[in-house]
Amino acid sequence: MDFRSDNVTGACPEVMAAIAAANHGSASSYGADAVTEGLTKQFARVFETDRLSVFPVATGSAANALSLAQLTPPHGSIWCHRHAHIEEDECGAPEFYTGGAKLRMLEGDHGKITAAGLEAAITGRGVVHHAQPASVSLTQASEAGTVYQVAEIEAVAEVCRRHGLALHMDGSRFANAVAALERSPAELTWRAGVEALSFGATKNGAMAAEAVVFFDPVKAADFAYRRKRGGHLFSKMRFLSAQLEAYLADDLWLRNARHANRMAARLAVGLEAVPGARLQHPVEANELFVELPDPVIRGLYADGFQFYRWDNEASVVIRLVTAFDTAPAAVDAFLASARRHAEHVPSVRRS
Amino acid sequence: MDFRSDNVTGACPEVMAAIAAANHGSASSYGADAVTEGLTKQFARVFETDRLSVFPVATGSAANALSLAQLTPPHGSIWCHRHAHIEEDECGAPEFYTGGAKLRMLEGDHGKITAAGLEAAITGRGVVHHAQPASVSLTQASEAGTVYQVAEIEAVAEVCRRHGLALHMDGSRFANAVAALERSPAELTWRAGVEALSFGATKNGAMAAEAVVFFDPVKAADFAYRRKRGGHLFSKMRFLSAQLEAYLADDLWLRNARHANRMAARLAVGLEAVPGARLQHPVEANELFVELPDPVIRGLYADGFQFYRWDNEASVVIRLVTAFDTAPAAVDAFLASARRHAEHVPSVRRS
Amino acid sequence: MDFRSDNVTGACPEVMAAIAAANHGSASSYGADAVTEGLTKQFARVFETDRLSVFPVATGSAANALSLAQLTPPHGSIWCHRHAHIEEDECGAPEFYTGGAKLRMLEGDHGKITAAGLEAAITGRGVVHHAQPASVSLTQASEAGTVYQVAEIEAVAEVCRRHGLALHMDGSRFANAVAALERSPAELTWRAGVEALSFGATKNGAMAAEAVVFFDPVKAADFAYRRKRGGHLFSKMRFLSAQLEAYLADDLWLRNARHANRMAARLAVGLEAVPGARLQHPVEANELFVELPDPVIRGLYADGFQFYRWDNEASVVIRLVTAFDTAPAAVDAFLASARRHAEHVPSVRRS
Amino acid sequence: MDFRSDNVTGACPEVMAAIAAANHGSASSYGADAVTEGLTKQFARVFETDRLSVFPVATGSAANALSLAQLTPPHGSIWCHRHAHIEEDECGAPEFYTGGAKLRMLEGDHGKITAAGLEAAITGRGVVHHAQPASVSLTQASEAGTVYQVAEIEAVAEVCRRHGLALHMDGSRFANAVAALERSPAELTWRAGVEALSFGATKNGAMAAEAVVFFDPVKAADFAYRRKRGGHLFSKMRFLSAQLEAYLADDLWLRNARHANRMAARLAVGLEAVPGARLQHPVEANELFVELPDPVIRGLYADGFQFYRWDNEASVVIRLVTAFDTAPAAVDAFLASARRHAEHVPSVRRS
Repeated sequence: MDFRSDNVTGACPEVMAAIAAANHGSASSYGADAVTEGLTKQFARVFETDRLSVFPVATGSAANALSLAQLTPPHGSIWCHRHAHIEEDECGAPEFYTGGAKLRMLEGDHGKITAAGLEAAITGRGVVHHAQPASVSLTQASEAGTVYQVAEIEAVAEVCRRHGLALHMDGSRFANAVAALERSPAELTWRAGVEALSFGATKNGAMAAEAVVFFDPVKAADFAYRRKRGGHLFSKMRFLSAQLEAYLADDLWLRNARHANRMAARLAVGLEAVPGARLQHPVEANELFVELPDPVIRGLYADGFQFYRWDNEASVVIRLVTAFDTAPAAVDAFLASARRHAEHVPSVRRS
Repeated sequence: MDFRSDNVTGACPEVMAAIAAANHGSASSYGADAVTEGLTKQFARVFETDRLSVFPVATGSAANALSLAQLTPPHGSIWCHRHAHIEEDECGAPEFYTGGAKLRMLEGDHGKITAAGLEAAITGRGVVHHAQPASVSLTQASEAGTVYQVAEIEAVAEVCRRHGLALHMDGSRFANAVAALERSPAELTWRAGVEALSFGATKNGAMAAEAVVFFDPVKAADFAYRRKRGGHLFSKMRFLSAQLEAYLADDLWLRNARHANRMAARLAVGLEAVPGARLQHPVEANELFVELPDPVIRGLYADGFQFYRWDNEASVVIRLVTAFDTAPAAVDAFLASARRHAEHVPSVRRS
Repeated sequence: MDFRSDNVTGACPEVMAAIAAANHGSASSYGADAVTEGLTKQFARVFETDRLSVFPVATGSAANALSLAQLTPPHGSIWCHRHAHIEEDECGAPEFYTGGAKLRMLEGDHGKITAAGLEAAITGRGVVHHAQPASVSLTQASEAGTVYQVAEIEAVAEVCRRHGLALHMDGSRFANAVAALERSPAELTWRAGVEALSFGATKNGAMAAEAVVFFDPVKAADFAYRRKRGGHLFSKMRFLSAQLEAYLADDLWLRNARHANRMAARLAVGLEAVPGARLQHPVEANELFVELPDPVIRGLYADGFQFYRWDNEASVVIRLVTAFDTAPAAVDAFLASARRHAEHVPSVRRS
Repeated sequence: MDFRSDNVTGACPEVMAAIAAANHGSASSYGADAVTEGLTKQFARVFETDRLSVFPVATGSAANALSLAQLTPPHGSIWCHRHAHIEEDECGAPEFYTGGAKLRMLEGDHGKITAAGLEAAITGRGVVHHAQPASVSLTQASEAGTVYQVAEIEAVAEVCRRHGLALHMDGSRFANAVAALERSPAELTWRAGVEALSFGATKNGAMAAEAVVFFDPVKAADFAYRRKRGGHLFSKMRFLSAQLEAYLADDLWLRNARHANRMAARLAVGLEAVPGARLQHPVEANELFVELPDPVIRGLYADGFQFYRWDNEASVVIRLVTAFDTAPAAVDAFLASARRHAEHVPSVRRS
């Protein structure tokens, strides 16, 4: 009954089995092992292209910072949503890895930037006093639990092309987005104009595994050195790669994500019956942001449910995150508790 | 029959079991879980002091670069042995994390620096044109498979104290050193003057786990931000911590290391009977550097043994590394093969 | 008739004379010369305190980036006004020198941040995912040509104290602010809580000279190395120092600034008589931001006046900057031209 | 009678006159002025090529660090002589500007590296654990007061070409080298394979002016942003450019350098008559390194001569540096003093 985040989960059984299976005999270190070498083929199949380079790392911050540093010179600017993880939750990792590039904030409803907003923000090209427009980072699914439609990505990519900007996707919850959109990984990335993807697995069933994927091997030149000097090249790489291999095999990643998304939808539907509950954003992936009366929140806490709350002047919002292992019964128990506590709130303003 | 490195091994059974055991239920992320919180107590017991701070990371390069950056300002110098891992094998990670500090090389027999060599090398204090003396890094066990005696560490530490230098220990093979020296972890570190330790586990039975240990919590101030922005803070930290917990429990780390050391000693003894074999360094931990006639080396390769070779003008040297899982039978097979091939070398110069 | 900036000017005669006077005989390099050594005393007199350290550099960007790097760790945040020079016009110099700290934007009327705005913006202290609140930078006079009152600085400083933030002042036009406010340099800096000042001279009569001033020598520790490795330690330092010495001698800096401010005021008063002219900000120092009808602007350009224009959807704004050498006749000619062209604009909306 | 360095000098009259001449009227800032714009043509004439880009900066450390950063990725290695200024005297500026590249030391007689020494040192290409071979920096004239012959530069450049390394020249005393060698600037740089030159003027008559010269504009891409964010773009650029213009006009740079070299030669010849004096290096430019008996050195100091001394176990060495303004009479006085004091040394070993 822990809805705090999808990173409070453990690893799913298939991933654990893959790790155990990888633990036999000796293997070449630093990625020269057979499992790692097989990954490229597997990603090529999933993304329907041979023109890619794949670099496993262990954390999402590493994947983001390393790939952004590859796309952005130290004197460059990176545009992202004001609430992007790279801006708010990585303690300056992109600035550190780029050597001091600037993150530039874009506003946008429901956690998504827009092509028009980006277009309007790009200034200063060629002016020596200004950090130079260099790259854009989309988060798919977004920090607000929403997803970018293919057309939205294409529109942003078109602005990027026109202005010579590289397009990065923070896909820490990429699986949830693919599951939600029912579009192929290729359509959501390189075909739409994405050049580098932080492909997340940790939040969706892996123990600690992400992959940086470049959709043009030329763009990946020297990336291996970047990863190494960041301290992100694992000696026993097979254990990272085994997680990713299992994650992609038999559509495990999509099965896990579909489950998480379904649990989020179940919560969303159930919350309609909770007086005073109001969703802040459309529920499209596995995160919900819900305004709730304070007594209801306190009641839920008292009943043992775990989640984060943010208090603003106007309202109190909680975040609920579902995962590959969220039990339908936990969702139902949460909803029952919420309904019960809401009934005791004297005059909940319906909004 | 793979003697290439101790990082070609998998994880030992106890570590695998601990990972599996940690995979139950939800847990607070980013190190707020119970396993991680228990680590400090465990390290305190092993190192016989409460005055320490422990930060798990996943790679040795991360541990070294992060801890050196904590001890060294960007305008500082770090002294280390010419063949230290931080100089030769981390692709500039210390320079990256420190913001451009200088590594300064010390010569020294058998992979070890000396107090006298350090003393003689320290110059430039207070001169604005020179990078400022800031820290020293010892590798224990060294890259040459030797170990620093307590008195040797103390002598280096005394020079450090006199010159205001911080003392770091790269303990990627710390367990092998402790096992070899039969001195306590405390005696080999903080009691001798070591301020920060990269405590390795990966090479000695973990899957991917190291700990940065500071022997003065004040010296660890803000280190958590450094780790985070390096992308080295794991969301599912319990899986790192579980490895370290199992590693320290029941002296697993020392049992593993003792075995590896014993296998190295067995190789050393056996090589005495191989005509033309000559050890370059005393065999004190789990690495051997052996001059061998080229036909013998080729014979060993042909028999399926794996190891690295370095060709110089004067000689050919191979490195043999033993590990927690090296089978005595593999050692004996290697020695038998070496002896057999050496017999067929026409006139091996005995050296 | 060049109102583009105060940096299109040359050096004033007193500064040129000082440079020539410094050019006699040999002198110790890198700041060990007599002129440089006298500077501290001179600044101590001007700022009424012995507790300061003074470091001449040649550019304002160097002064800002170096001093902010001294006050801000790589994982820190620097708050400044959205239109601060350090954010908009230094191509990421603060990010470069700090090793990737984050600039955080504050809104504020007329180019000034407020204590309340700062207070509301400070979040994330102690949360490992967030860049840590570290410092604040005020621009005095501001980029909008306004000045901070002593009480405004004190209020910001009070927030800083409460939150453990260092307070920096970008005083690229500090002289203009002092001249405008008729308060002492001490009152406007350390007595109000400013810890480090980028003390500008270049824009106000020097050739290329600024000084980084720390109001606590302890805060200046190791700054000399920072300056050196930035390439900002001049070998023939006497030529930088001579500029600063002349600048401070006989109140030259204030006489120059008073003249520039008077010329700005003269422009402001004159513009009241220009139909369609509207000042965007109070004119308190030596910069004016003026909405003007496009035909007037084109007329001024045609008459040979030089200045920058910014076109927004709603209006066209020009910037006028006066300097130590702005001739009253040039001001009057500008006003006459503006009036003449404004008369021919059919229907200027009075605003 | 100051032989400490060529940077204890002031500016020569022609440079001072040029600065004064530049101080008329307003001028576009940041290098858009006429003087700066004329520089490229002037350098093109001096270096006999249009394929160059010129960037004035104010210090030699800035010129070196900025140009090396342009040629070397953060994961790269820079080879230089063990006693190169970039290694010993810039407090880590190259490491700072490159983002943590590694300087690798080459030995070499009389301050010069050799093609063979370089060739032997290059290792690790393509190995992810090693900093990648990226660039080489020659110092012309060297720190030992010697010069590289054209053939020596070509030989180093040939190694660079074969290994894909960029070739940089630290020409802080480039004028002295050109004057000494009587070869054209072109022959000593791009025709020999040099790609970037730190062209010094400060030590040879300028106040504070150097130029970074790239012999392929493509290699200079984005360099302007690098300079800006380093804080090295001067607003009143005309004053830097005027120094360089005067320096190159009418062969002032070579006239100044020839004088300095002649004074050094005069010292060298005169020292032959000083018992106990022994030159450590051939005197080819404007620096001498002389072993002298300690009583002679003390006598010279007592007579008011200024110079640096280094005490080793084996000997005492002083450095004498001549400059554009060294008076023949000062040289003769120095020699007379040395001879006089040497006569009183009981038994000087002739060496």
